[in-house]
Amino acid sequence: MADKFLSKRNLKFLLYEVFSVDELNKYEYFQDHSRDTFDMIIDTAIKIGTDMMYPVFQEMDTNPPQYIDGIVKTHPIVKTTMREFGKGGWINANQSYEYGGQQIPTVIQNVLQFIFCAANYSLNAYPGLTRGAANLIVHFGSREQKDQYLEKMFSGYWQGTMALTEPDAGSSLADIRTSAEDTGLGYYKIKGTKIFISAGDTDAVDNTIHMMLARIKGAPAGVKGISLFIVPKYRSNKNGEFEFNDLTCTGMEHKLGYKGSPICQLAMGENGDCHGYLVGDPNKGLSYMFHMMNEKRVAVGIGATAKATAAYYAALEYAQQRLQGRKITENDPLSAQIPITEHADVKRMLLFQRAICEGALSLAVQAAKYLDLATVGEESEKYDLISDLLIPIVKTYPSEMGILSASAAIQCLGGYGFCRDFPVEQYYRDIRIDTLHEGTTGIQAKDLLGRKVTMKGGKAYQLVIEEVSKTIGQAQAIPDLKAYAEKLTEALDAFKEVTGFLLEIKQRGDLEKFEADAAIYLEMAGVVVVAWQWLLQATTAARALASGVNESDSNFYHGKLYTFQYYYKYELPKIEGLVAVLKNSDAITVEMKTELFLD
Amino acid sequence: MADKFLSKRNLKFLLYEVFSVDELNKYEYFQDHSRDTFDMIIDTAIKIGTDMMYPVFQEMDTNPPQYIDGIVKTHPIVKTTMREFGKGGWINANQSYEYGGQQIPTVIQNVLQFIFCAANYSLNAYPGLTRGAANLIVHFGSREQKDQYLEKMFSGYWQGTMALTEPDAGSSLADIRTSAEDTGLGYYKIKGTKIFISAGDTDAVDNTIHMMLARIKGAPAGVKGISLFIVPKYRSNKNGEFEFNDLTCTGMEHKLGYKGSPICQLAMGENGDCHGYLVGDPNKGLSYMFHMMNEKRVAVGIGATAKATAAYYAALEYAQQRLQGRKITENDPLSAQIPITEHADVKRMLLFQRAICEGALSLAVQAAKYLDLATVGEESEKYDLISDLLIPIVKTYPSEMGILSASAAIQCLGGYGFCRDFPVEQYYRDIRIDTLHEGTTGIQAKDLLGRKVTMKGGKAYQLVIEEVSKTIGQAQAIPDLKAYAEKLTEALDAFKEVTGFLLEIKQRGDLEKFEADAAIYLEMAGVVVVAWQWLLQATTAARALASGVNESDSNFYHGKLYTFQYYYKYELPKIEGLVAVLKNSDAITVEMKTELFLD
Repeated sequence: MADKFLSKRNLKFLLYEVFSVDELNKYEYFQDHSRDTFDMIIDTAIKIGTDMMYPVFQEMDTNPPQYIDGIVKTHPIVKTTMREFGKGGWINANQSYEYGGQQIPTVIQNVLQFIFCAANYSLNAYPGLTRGAANLIVHFGSREQKDQYLEKMFSGYWQGTMALTEPDAGSSLADIRTSAEDTGLGYYKIKGTKIFISAGDTDAVDNTIHMMLARIKGAPAGVKGISLFIVPKYRSNKNGEFEFNDLTCTGMEHKLGYKGSPICQLAMGENGDCHGYLVGDPNKGLSYMFHMMNEKRVAVGIGATAKATAAYYAALEYAQQRLQGRKITENDPLSAQIPITEHADVKRMLLFQRAICEGALSLAVQAAKYLDLATVGEESEKYDLISDLLIPIVKTYPSEMGILSASAAIQCLGGYGFCRDFPVEQYYRDIRIDTLHEGTTGIQAKDLLGRKVTMKGGKAYQLVIEEVSKTIGQAQAIPDLKAYAEKLTEALDAFKEVTGFLLEIKQRGDLEKFEADAAIYLEMAGVVVVAWQWLLQATTAARALASGVNESDSNFYHGKLYTFQYYYKYELPKIEGLVAVLKNSDAITVEMKTELFLD
Repeated sequence: MADKFLSKRNLKFLLYEVFSVDELNKYEYFQDHSRDTFDMIIDTAIKIGTDMMYPVFQEMDTNPPQYIDGIVKTHPIVKTTMREFGKGGWINANQSYEYGGQQIPTVIQNVLQFIFCAANYSLNAYPGLTRGAANLIVHFGSREQKDQYLEKMFSGYWQGTMALTEPDAGSSLADIRTSAEDTGLGYYKIKGTKIFISAGDTDAVDNTIHMMLARIKGAPAGVKGISLFIVPKYRSNKNGEFEFNDLTCTGMEHKLGYKGSPICQLAMGENGDCHGYLVGDPNKGLSYMFHMMNEKRVAVGIGATAKATAAYYAALEYAQQRLQGRKITENDPLSAQIPITEHADVKRMLLFQRAICEGALSLAVQAAKYLDLATVGEESEKYDLISDLLIPIVKTYPSEMGILSASAAIQCLGGYGFCRDFPVEQYYRDIRIDTLHEGTTGIQAKDLLGRKVTMKGGKAYQLVIEEVSKTIGQAQAIPDLKAYAEKLTEALDAFKEVTGFLLEIKQRGDLEKFEADAAIYLEMAGVVVVAWQWLLQATTAARALASGVNESDSNFYHGKLYTFQYYYKYELPKIEGLVAVLKNSDAITVEMKTELFLD
């Protein structure tokens, strides 16, 4: 285990210096908060992460949940954590006072997610999923449903889940088959099978509440006939007693990583007695679920950033302590070996990780601030559109690049990186899920290019371009950053050109070709958007240095600026190759026929 | 488990159609061979892989070796395999008749490695390491040593290892501390510790023979004072009886992947009674070991290619069977779902894997043919130089890109890719070792840029450029390939320009800056060299198609050509970004100070 899994200094740099999130407190909804309350919440979260969650990070991987006689037995820390999170108000901290919450901004909520995920991703899944499930009830549930479920969920006695996927409906939610039959008695009879349900069963809680998508009999085909139900493991009967709801965990996946949290298969209504309670209106399930899904997609991006960050600090600690080799200019074999942080190639790998992790975290904080402004500000539509466009990038960039970052962490440790004595191999396994769950990278790419870029006549796209341009304008005023502002301008121009090129294909009606390279487009968008985040950070760091700082801050800001330069030297040029791909009109992947894979 | 883990059709395409390896049979050393004997050997190897090795591929991962009371207990198949490989002559097939071998060319030997590694990488490690260790004795051992060790090793009764790494000497072999004291009685007393020794102990054999680097007392410091020893676990005494040689396996690493083979810690001479037998001359150990090391580096590249290939076929099989979603142009939600191989994004991921795997395999076959020509041909110096330059690329390209390829295999399976019910997650873990062992990517990069490019006045580098140019010339004669030949010419020009740019930095004496981006240079070299391999393959495929073929061959050749086009559209443009990095003279990674990582 490494000593450190995140940088508090960097969190405060992003929150207060780059994004001035304390400004949110001028809005009525957040008026009881101040930088002091934020700091207190963050410091407490770091303490919980450090003292309770991080110490069992490896143990939960080595001793994953066991599926025994229809029940999933999880590590004892899960129960403790759910109760502590309940008691401490961590599950509903972002809810309004009405729901016992603390009305903290989304941006602070997301920083808490980052802290808990960096400490122990699998463990955070339990309260994290409960928060998301409860939030759906808060938004779309009836008064009665709120009274019945929220208190138990917020206090950590009941687990919440998101139950979408089925064996034949993964990326294609239109094909959900789980059925719901109205009994006219205030509940539906649910029948079907769900798979891949995170925290789908655990003996750490008294009940599990599944927010489940199903199709009411007679509903339209496809996504227009999907409804949202509350389907608990135990339901309360007329006498207020709890009885089994004919919902069984039939098995559990054995996985590459993320082992501390069970991914379950569920069977509903095997005895024809599974009750489900409709949330909101019939056939609106997918749009409700997408409310939670957007939240979860941001959470996946933050989780990936957190795991890559923890891996980076483990690699950094190792590299600082490991003595190996000598400078290329040192010819005396009897001279002492040097710490490997002195080798340019190792520094390159460390800077790569730092550039990815701090760039992705900056983007997550930025996007969350937009989400807050979409709720409380005067320009809510604007910020709603901007955050909507950014979400597939916020989800995908850290997930895809985080895999490479965790891999670089392994590489820094050499052979030890491959061994279980060090935590980096676990981060490498744990992070591999993030390009898969809550919509694969392919699904995010279709979302960005096929929907978000063109929605409302391209307004969201235009607004994001304007935000990036604003940052460029500010950086141009700082002499040392002028050349970098120019590079980002060029990158942005290239992005606009590529977007125009692709939209022309769409206008010609060649939809398959238009979306064929959506994943490459998403990759390019990620590189450009994170370059924007780095220019923002560099602007802040350069201004701080100009104002005079102490030695420790000076190291921090100079480290930031080197990492920024690293990003612009090593990462940003990748778009040159990506532009070449995107503007190449050979439709190889469209034309390639299935039988040509036979050999 | 997937049905298929490699393509026999592709192996024969490369061997006979692209590289005409049967031409080697014109040389006296190989004169007893023919395409028929090669085919027979390859077909038998595939049968062994399919029937004996592949069925336990997952089981060896789930039930890794156990370290109990100082002995490593391995899966029973290890003993069976060692004996079968011994009996079948697979351990010494590439040796001369003098050593009971079959005098098969290196290129065929490497194809056998590819087959066995694709079937079960961990299991192949046992006979594979024994082959390498025995080969060192063949080349540098005394007559007596050969008589004493080879027969038992070749027959699979004794395991061989390569024992280099120590706790403080990983990448820096100059710092090896294991000591050897001459007793004047025909043996040295060995004392020290080794770590990371693959197959360092196993109860599957009667004895383990370590080819070990140690420092004779009084020898020069650094690499010039390292000698090679045979250090067996059991030594024979004067009476010909075997007695314990005071060499103990003190532990075993628990690892991310490659779990079927133990990686051991060894302690020599804890009771002052470990005998080591000097191989060849004192202080020549490292150069001897590099003979085996080059072989092993090629083997690592082949192993990585094999694992990525097996992952690709598992992904392809899944994608062909999995129904999910519809064409973007299909609006009826009640229409049947289609196999995901029909989605352009999935085809892109499959073509990516195929481009990496078949490109890397082509390079490995090409390099092995050069190695053969370096042994038997009239131009042995030329081919020796070419293969020497290519080795760091042959090792690194499949290792680095294979990680991404196996990751893409996971992505093709969606959530199932993360689950242990499918083999791709294991390939993803197993392949992660290849950028680490037998010299990390950083070490390979220093080898390529710091040594190989400039050796003999840059002659090897020039010869490789000539070989690539020859291929370009041939492709230019085929109208459909002309544009691609042009692209490779541009890429080669860019590579030459970058090389010149870097060598100027070297000439100015700024050695640290010169080597700082060696890993990026190696990455670029890999992209260009594999583009060369794809142009070679495309030339062969285009000629074959022009001559008229049956439907199955037509599918195969057209599939090749699409994969070739994929490589030129999606992979080759990466060099644009890499050139930008390499020609950017900001020495960020040299200048970045260790304390700037503090935050």
